[in-house]
Amino acid sequence: MYEVTKFGGEGKRLEDYREIIGDEALEAIKAKAENLKDKSFVHVNSTSFGGGVAEILHNLVPLMRDVGIDARWFVIEGTNEFFNVTKSFHNALQGNKELRLTEEMKKLYLEINKKNAEDIDLTQFDYVLIHDPQPAPLIEFYEKRQPWIWRCHIDLSDPNLEFWKFLRQFVEKYDRYIFHMEEYVQEDLNQEKVVIMPPSIDPLSEKNMELSESEILKTLERFDVDPERPIITQVARFDPWKGVFDVIDVYRKVKEKIPEVQLLLVGVMAHDDPEGWIYFEKTLRKIGEDYDIKVLTNLTGVHAREVNAFQRASDVILQMSIREGFGLTVTEAMWKEKPVVGRAVGGIKLQIVDGKTGFLVKDVNDAIEKTLYLLEHKDVAQEMGKNAKERIKENFIITKHLERYLDLLNSF
Amino acid sequence: MYEVTKFGGEGKRLEDYREIIGDEALEAIKAKAENLKDKSFVHVNSTSFGGGVAEILHNLVPLMRDVGIDARWFVIEGTNEFFNVTKSFHNALQGNKELRLTEEMKKLYLEINKKNAEDIDLTQFDYVLIHDPQPAPLIEFYEKRQPWIWRCHIDLSDPNLEFWKFLRQFVEKYDRYIFHMEEYVQEDLNQEKVVIMPPSIDPLSEKNMELSESEILKTLERFDVDPERPIITQVARFDPWKGVFDVIDVYRKVKEKIPEVQLLLVGVMAHDDPEGWIYFEKTLRKIGEDYDIKVLTNLTGVHAREVNAFQRASDVILQMSIREGFGLTVTEAMWKEKPVVGRAVGGIKLQIVDGKTGFLVKDVNDAIEKTLYLLEHKDVAQEMGKNAKERIKENFIITKHLERYLDLLNSF
Repeated sequence: MYEVTKFGGEGKRLEDYREIIGDEALEAIKAKAENLKDKSFVHVNSTSFGGGVAEILHNLVPLMRDVGIDARWFVIEGTNEFFNVTKSFHNALQGNKELRLTEEMKKLYLEINKKNAEDIDLTQFDYVLIHDPQPAPLIEFYEKRQPWIWRCHIDLSDPNLEFWKFLRQFVEKYDRYIFHMEEYVQEDLNQEKVVIMPPSIDPLSEKNMELSESEILKTLERFDVDPERPIITQVARFDPWKGVFDVIDVYRKVKEKIPEVQLLLVGVMAHDDPEGWIYFEKTLRKIGEDYDIKVLTNLTGVHAREVNAFQRASDVILQMSIREGFGLTVTEAMWKEKPVVGRAVGGIKLQIVDGKTGFLVKDVNDAIEKTLYLLEHKDVAQEMGKNAKERIKENFIITKHLERYLDLLNSF
Repeated sequence: MYEVTKFGGEGKRLEDYREIIGDEALEAIKAKAENLKDKSFVHVNSTSFGGGVAEILHNLVPLMRDVGIDARWFVIEGTNEFFNVTKSFHNALQGNKELRLTEEMKKLYLEINKKNAEDIDLTQFDYVLIHDPQPAPLIEFYEKRQPWIWRCHIDLSDPNLEFWKFLRQFVEKYDRYIFHMEEYVQEDLNQEKVVIMPPSIDPLSEKNMELSESEILKTLERFDVDPERPIITQVARFDPWKGVFDVIDVYRKVKEKIPEVQLLLVGVMAHDDPEGWIYFEKTLRKIGEDYDIKVLTNLTGVHAREVNAFQRASDVILQMSIREGFGLTVTEAMWKEKPVVGRAVGGIKLQIVDGKTGFLVKDVNDAIEKTLYLLEHKDVAQEMGKNAKERIKENFIITKHLERYLDLLNSF
C-alpha cells in the first residue's frame, strides 16, 4: 500500500466554487466541516490514475483538506494475477454470470489484502473509507477502533451471486455501505447501514469548464464539424450496452425531416479490449460513407477538452444506453445546459426530469419524436437546458458530493 | 550502446534448412563460410525488437554463428529527442519533403552517436555493419582499421534532399553501402562501392512455417471465414500507399461474376498513429455491411501465425500498393505457392515474373481481369504458385541472405 501525495486537483479550494454555488451553499458546507476540523479521514482504493474513482479523488481530497479535514489517500498494491482476479470480481458483480470464483482466486484475493494491511496502520485514522471490491477484505486484518465505510461504484443491479455472496461477508462488517442508487442496494444487507450517494462531476475540470466560443469553433473545425448545421450527439464507449446502433437509427429518421442534421459519436477506445474493437468495427460499417456522422475518439486526438467542446456545440444530446450505471455523460451534458433525450434506465432515470430538463424515452421511435421536437422548438430546448443545469447544481456536482460526505461523517 | 545476447532465433542452425534448400546449396554456403571462420562481424542498429531489421537479425546472427563466424549485435541508445530526430530522418528519406533539418537536430544526432561510440570499441572487430541512418555517424568517432559497411533498409526512391545531403557525408566514408534495389541507389554516391542485396523471409518462422490443414481450418473458423468459398486476400497496413480502396473495388467487380467470393483484408494497426486510424475508419466505412469482407488485425487477435494461415487459405493474393519498398508480404505469399496479382511498382516488380509466377498489373481493371482468370483457372493458379515458391527459394530466403553476406565479406 502506498500514499498518493500528488493530486490532479492540487490547490483546489472551496472558494473557487463560490460563484457557481453561491454564498449560502458555500457557508453551509463550511459550517458542516466545522466540527470535523483536524479529524483524519482516509480513502483506500486500487489505482491512483484512470477510472472514475481516481478521477474524483484527485479533486475531492484537496477540497476536503481545504475545509480543514486531514484527508489522506492510499492505494493497495498487488500482482498481475491479483488484478485479474479483481477484474473478474468487477465483471461478475456487473452482471457476468459465466464467471466462476475458484478457491485459488479467494486465497490470492485475501493474501494480497493481508499483505497490504501490514504496510499501513489504518487504525490511526478517525474514519476509514474503502472503495469497491479490490480492498474490501482489509477490514479483516485490523482491530476496528473507528467507523469503517465501504463504497460501491459498480452497477450492482444484477450481480453474479456467487461473487456477491463471497464479498458480502466482508461488506457486512462495515458500519456503513454507500451505493450510487437504490437499485444497487442488495436485499441481504442490513438496510439501516445503507447510504445512497450519487457520483458527481467537477464543474471546473477540463471536461466541464466554460470554454470560449472561439475555442469551440476551432475544435469543430479541426474535426470537420459544421457549426452552421444542427448537431445531435452521444458521448459513450463503443459497446453494445450503449445503444449506439439505436442512436444511428434515430439520426437517420431525423435526417429525413432535417437533411442538414449532423451526428457526433464521441467515445473512448481502450487499446486492450478485443470486444470493444469488434463493436467499433461493426459501428463504422453500419455508418458507411455518410460523413455527416462523425466518429470522434481518443485515437484521433479527442480528449476531455474536445469532448467538452462537442457537448457545448450540440443542440440535442442523446443517451440511448440499454443499461447505464449512473451515466456521468448525461450529468456533463445537463451541466452544459443541454436537453438530453435518454432511455429511461439506471442513472439516466435519476437525472432527467421528463418534460422539464429533457425527455425520458422508452424506444427509438419515442427518441425520434422528442429529438425532432427539440430541434424544431429552440426556445423549449433552451428552457429545458436551463432547468437541467439547475438540477445538476442542486444534486450532482463535487461540492454537493463533499457536503454528503460531511453529513455522513457527522452522522457518527 | 548495449549488446543483444538473447535471440528470437536462438539455436537456429543451417542444418535446419537442408530439406528446404537441398544439399548442394547448403554445402555451397558452408564452403563460403570456411575462410571466414572465427572472423568477428558486428551488426549495429537502433532497436532490438519490432521492425524489419531487428526481426531479421534475431535469426541471421545465430545462423552466422552456426557457420563459424563470431557474429555480434549491438544497439545504440539515445534520448526520446534523439529518436524523434531519427524518426524525422526516416520519414524525410522515405519522401516527406515538408520536414526541415535544423542545426539543433544535427547537433543532437552527432552528440548521441559520439556518446555511443565511447561505450564500445568497434575497432576490435574484423568487419563492421551499420544499419540505417540512426547509427550512421558512428564511423566519425573511430579510427578505421577494417571494412565498414552501411546498409539502408529505407525506400530511398524519392528522398528529402536536405536530409540526404547531410547523411551522405557519413555514408561516403564507408567501404560499401548496401541497398535493397537499384531504384534506391543515389547517383551522388561512388557507384563502385554499391552492393544490391534484397531483404529475405525466414521459411521456418511463425509467419512462414508449414501449418497443418486442421490449424488453418480452425483459424478460418475462429474468424468466421468460410473455407468452402473462394478467398482473395491482401496483407498490408491500412494506409493510403497500400491501395486498400483499389482492392475493395477489385473484389466488388469480381463478386459480380463470382458471388460467393470472400475478401480478407489482413493488417497491423499501430496504436500511436492518428493518420493510421483515420484511414482505418475510412476503409471500414467504405466496406459498409458486406460481411464477406473480413477485416483481420492485431486488434482482434490476428498475429504472425494467423496471417500465415490466411495466406495459405487464399486462392489469390493481391498487392495493389501505389508505392512499395520491397513488399515482404508478396514474398511470404509466393513462398506459400500463391499466385500474386500485384501492381508493377517497387519491390513487387522485382519479385513477380509476370505470367509465370503471378501477374503484374497497371490498374484496377487489369487486376480484376487477372484475379477472375486465376479463380476460373485453378490449374494455372497452381502452376504459377509452384513457380512462385521456386523463385523465392532461389532469391529471397534467409539462407540466400546469409550467402550474400558471406560473398560480401569474402570480397574484401
